[in-house]
Amino acid sequence: MRRPKALAFDVFGTVVDWRTSIARESAGFLARVGLGAHDPAAFADAWRAQYIAAMIGMRKSGRDFVPLDVLHREMLEHTLREAGADPAECDEALLDDWNRAWHRLDPWPDAVAGLTRLKARFPVVTLSNGNIALLMNMARRAGLPWDAILGAEVSGFYKPDARAYLRTADLLQIAPDELCIVAAHHGDLAAARKAGLMTAYVNRPDEYGGAPAPDAHHEQTWEWSATSFIDLADRLGC
Amino acid sequence: MRRPKALAFDVFGTVVDWRTSIARESAGFLARVGLGAHDPAAFADAWRAQYIAAMIGMRKSGRDFVPLDVLHREMLEHTLREAGADPAECDEALLDDWNRAWHRLDPWPDAVAGLTRLKARFPVVTLSNGNIALLMNMARRAGLPWDAILGAEVSGFYKPDARAYLRTADLLQIAPDELCIVAAHHGDLAAARKAGLMTAYVNRPDEYGGAPAPDAHHEQTWEWSATSFIDLADRLGC
Repeated sequence: MRRPKALAFDVFGTVVDWRTSIARESAGFLARVGLGAHDPAAFADAWRAQYIAAMIGMRKSGRDFVPLDVLHREMLEHTLREAGADPAECDEALLDDWNRAWHRLDPWPDAVAGLTRLKARFPVVTLSNGNIALLMNMARRAGLPWDAILGAEVSGFYKPDARAYLRTADLLQIAPDELCIVAAHHGDLAAARKAGLMTAYVNRPDEYGGAPAPDAHHEQTWEWSATSFIDLADRLGC
Repeated sequence: MRRPKALAFDVFGTVVDWRTSIARESAGFLARVGLGAHDPAAFADAWRAQYIAAMIGMRKSGRDFVPLDVLHREMLEHTLREAGADPAECDEALLDDWNRAWHRLDPWPDAVAGLTRLKARFPVVTLSNGNIALLMNMARRAGLPWDAILGAEVSGFYKPDARAYLRTADLLQIAPDELCIVAAHHGDLAAARKAGLMTAYVNRPDEYGGAPAPDAHHEQTWEWSATSFIDLADRLGC
């Protein structure tokens, strides 16, 4: 197999465990807005469940680009209303801090060690829909050794828009087929492949707490398939 | 003195010694294009001398944004013509490699150790006119531990345009006066201050090989003034 010239990582679910982290943070916030009886993991799932529709909505609606923090906040308010709370009656600083829980996600146990090994051989960059401040704060807290923080806010387009993938390759001054996306999501990999990128799948069976992935129907045979970033480093000869 | 929330670094001359590196690389290339008798340090100076005019020209002409690699190439061809060589007769791969010497600049001796100390307390990002690929390749080669690569290509504007500074603060989700620019250049610091940023000067007396700096007339009293990144880390309490 031909080796890529750089690795571009999906982040939410692939590098970090959003569900456990958002549930942990939400437990405290739910109590503070009178929803202490609500299951925090279910709240995390409901918040995240709006994500794919929001990404596709950005493209279809022609809405001007806004950072993911803005979309996360809209989704948080929607989730709160669904749970029976009125966000307009919540403290603004509380909502802002709750929303920034996405800046404080914990990495999967193999992520830092795996990225460190991969970085020795390949440039490792983000190709995430997260905004720069979110990804930078997360990386500083978790010790993620990115060479550059790229993705939606730098390209101006949200995945799965092909331009998010193509612009990232362009900024790295390599051809699309020299860039390998690394993701735990078949939908992301399928869109990246359609744009001409190489693809590496990393299995994260706990991402949805054991529930099936919403994009399982996009599954294909990818250039690489690994059980962790350590396994991916082995497979890529790092 | 109030502490900043993040440090944004000028790179060429402040973090890396462009003159020694470009002279070293140019020595070999000059010989290959029949200019072996040319002084490589003078060639580096002539190449860099067009830089400030090019940055201001981008703003004044209204030319669409192009990465610095494109401008460096135009300046290289101009410098070659001035030296008596016709770039149209030079090998394209040679010119491309020569131009990418800017991706291979060596850091000042204190840069990596100083940045590592500063990074423990502050986010450290680039706020450079260099493009992302250039700065990432340079950082990987030199071991510069950036938290994020920001600047002209991410903001869409070249310094000293105020929007280059303001957009960087905005992407970091902090106010302009919470961001401190670190630069060896009084002109860069003056433009950053005018945009509302905090300022830290680092003296690099060898940047121009002992010749006076072209922007000395912009000198003011800056919030911090240091002799190295180590000294700056001391002054910022790192």
